[in-house]
Amino acid sequence: MTTSNLSSLTNHQIRLSARPVGLPKTTDWSHTSEAVSEPAEGGVTLKTLALSLDPAMRGWMNEGKSYIAPVGIGEVMRAGGVGKVIASKNPQFAVGEHVSGGFGVQEYITLAADEIKRSGLVKIDLRAGSLTQWLNVLGMPGMTGYFGLMDVGMPQAGETVVVSGAAGAVGQTVGQLAKIKGCRVVGIAGGAAKCEWVVKELGFDACIDYKSGPGAVRAGLKEHCPKGVDIYFDNVGGDILDDVLARINRKARIIICGAISQYNNTTAVQGPKNYLSLLVNRARMEGIVVFDYADRYHLAIAEMAGYIRDGRMKSKEDVVEGLQTFPETLLKLFNGENFGKLVLEVAKG
Amino acid sequence: MTTSNLSSLTNHQIRLSARPVGLPKTTDWSHTSEAVSEPAEGGVTLKTLALSLDPAMRGWMNEGKSYIAPVGIGEVMRAGGVGKVIASKNPQFAVGEHVSGGFGVQEYITLAADEIKRSGLVKIDLRAGSLTQWLNVLGMPGMTGYFGLMDVGMPQAGETVVVSGAAGAVGQTVGQLAKIKGCRVVGIAGGAAKCEWVVKELGFDACIDYKSGPGAVRAGLKEHCPKGVDIYFDNVGGDILDDVLARINRKARIIICGAISQYNNTTAVQGPKNYLSLLVNRARMEGIVVFDYADRYHLAIAEMAGYIRDGRMKSKEDVVEGLQTFPETLLKLFNGENFGKLVLEVAKG
Repeated sequence: MTTSNLSSLTNHQIRLSARPVGLPKTTDWSHTSEAVSEPAEGGVTLKTLALSLDPAMRGWMNEGKSYIAPVGIGEVMRAGGVGKVIASKNPQFAVGEHVSGGFGVQEYITLAADEIKRSGLVKIDLRAGSLTQWLNVLGMPGMTGYFGLMDVGMPQAGETVVVSGAAGAVGQTVGQLAKIKGCRVVGIAGGAAKCEWVVKELGFDACIDYKSGPGAVRAGLKEHCPKGVDIYFDNVGGDILDDVLARINRKARIIICGAISQYNNTTAVQGPKNYLSLLVNRARMEGIVVFDYADRYHLAIAEMAGYIRDGRMKSKEDVVEGLQTFPETLLKLFNGENFGKLVLEVAKG
Repeated sequence: MTTSNLSSLTNHQIRLSARPVGLPKTTDWSHTSEAVSEPAEGGVTLKTLALSLDPAMRGWMNEGKSYIAPVGIGEVMRAGGVGKVIASKNPQFAVGEHVSGGFGVQEYITLAADEIKRSGLVKIDLRAGSLTQWLNVLGMPGMTGYFGLMDVGMPQAGETVVVSGAAGAVGQTVGQLAKIKGCRVVGIAGGAAKCEWVVKELGFDACIDYKSGPGAVRAGLKEHCPKGVDIYFDNVGGDILDDVLARINRKARIIICGAISQYNNTTAVQGPKNYLSLLVNRARMEGIVVFDYADRYHLAIAEMAGYIRDGRMKSKEDVVEGLQTFPETLLKLFNGENFGKLVLEVAKG
C-alpha cells in the first residue's frame, strides 16, 4: 500500500549547522525543505506527529566519543518521535498505523528496509497510552527511569529514593515507580508549582524546590530524608549531586542518568567533590544508557501501561506546537522552563 | 600465665594533640609514657613489635562522620600492628604467641576481655608470612586489595586492570592478584625505581611513572591499555582518577579505596570532572571499606598465604625503626617517599 502523491508533500527539516558552544543558538541550526520520497521495497514513509525533546540532545551535538555518534554537521537533527505510516512497502507496517522510533526533527521520513530496525521503529497501541505518553512514560524517558531505578537502583520497600529533575520526563517515572515499589520518595525540582504537582498529583512524599534559595537542597534533604538516602537518581549533576552525596546511607546506589546542569558548560564539568562519600558509605555510582535494555522494553511498557490503566501512574507533557519552534523550544529544558516532559507537536494526529 | 614485672616496664606512646590542618605537623603530636598495667581477668598484655602506617590514618585524625570514629584529641594514635603476648589471663592467648590487631602507636597495650574482640586481635602464624607481611599482604592492606579487587572489581581473565599507588601496600596486592587471575595489569607509581620494581619483581605488564612529566599518565594509559581499562583500583584520586575515567571501557568497575592526593588538602576535595564517563560507559564507581569483609579474612589469608608459598605473591615493606620517629615517618606516605608497605618497627621480635 502506498499513497499516491508523496512527492507533492514538502518535508520541512531542521538541521544542525554548527557545533554549539554553550547553549545552542539560532545560528547553530538551518531550516531546509525537500520533497518526500516514495519508500523502496521493504521501506515505509512516516508522517511525524510529535517529537521528544530531551536533555540528551545537547550531548549529541558535541564532537567526540560518547554512547552514540554525534549528529553530523548538515544532518537533520536526531530526535525520537511518534507518527503514522503514510506509505508502506513493508508488510509489517500498514498505512494509518501509529509508530514510534527515530524520526529526526522533520515532518516526514522515508526509511529503507535496513533503516527500519536501526531507527527502532515499533508500532504503538494508543489504547495503552496517548501519543504523548508514548514519548514520556511509555517512551525513552520512561524506559530510562524504569531500568535505571529497577536494574541499577534495585529499590527495596522502605528505602528512601531521591530524584532530581522530579517534574521532568524521567523524574516523574522514577518517583512514581519508586512509590509503587514501596519506597519513600523525595523529589528535587525547580519552582513551587512543579514541587506542588509532584507531591499532590504524583504522590511523592516531599519535593525540594532547589530554586527557593541557597542551601535549600541541603536543608530539604535533612528535613525530608531523616533516615538518609538509599537511592539517588541523578538527572542534574553539579551542586545537587554533592548535596545528596553528603547524605547517602551505607550501600547507597546513585544512578547517573544525566547532568543537565553541566551540558552547556563552556568550562570543565564540575566533578562531585563529595565523591569520597562513596568510600565511607561503601556506596555505588553507576551510569545508565537506556538502549542497553532494548530487549526488555516490551516488558517494562506492559508493566507501566498497567499502572497507567490503574491510575497509579500519571504523566504530564509540556506540548509546544510547530516544528519551526524547535530551536527555542529546546532551550526550555536548559532553563528548567518546561513543566513535564517536553514534546514538540509537529502535526495533529 | 603472666610475667611478673609488667609495672616496671615503661610504655612510650604517641598521642594526637591537635587536629592537623594539611600535613600533620610535629606539634600535632604529644609523646607520653606510663607504666604497663597488668591484664584483668580475661585480658592480655601485648608488646608491640611493628605498626602499620597507612594513608587512612590521615582521615582518622579529622573530625566528622566517617566509616570509623575519629581519634580523640589526647588519645593514643590508632594503628594496627603485630606483636606478642607478654601477659595473659585469657585462655585463648598464651604468652609468647604472635598476634595482630589494633595496638595504637605505643610500645605496649593491655586489653580487657571486651576490648580483645573490638581490637580485632587474632593470632598470626609466622610460617605463613613474616611479621611485616602480616602487616602487608596478609594484613589490612592485603585484605583491602583482595576484597576490593575480587568483590567490587570482579576481574575476568583477559581484562585490563589499572592500579594506582602500585608500589604501595594495597597496590602490590591488587596488581599481583589481578595477574594471578589472568588480567593484564598496569600500575601507576611515582618514580622509575618503583615502576621498575613493580614490573620486574611483581610481574606487572607495565607501570606508568606519574612523576615523569605532565601528561605522563594520559600517554601511559594510551600506550599500555590499548584495549581500554576494565577495572581501576584507585588509591590516589585527583587528576589520575580523571585520566583513567577518560579511558574506561563499557561496564568498567572503579574501586574507590582511597584518595591520598586529597587527604591533606586545605581546600575542597577535587571531584572527578570526568565522572560522566560512568554514564557513557555504563560503568560503576564503588567504595570499599575492608572491615565489611572481616568474616572472610581467614579465607583470603589462606589463599594469599598459598600464593606467597608458591612464590606467586611477593611483597616489599619499607621498615623504619623507632616509635619516636612516627610523626616524620608517617609523612613518607604523603610525599610518596615510602617504597613498599610502610612499617614502623617498634621492637625486635
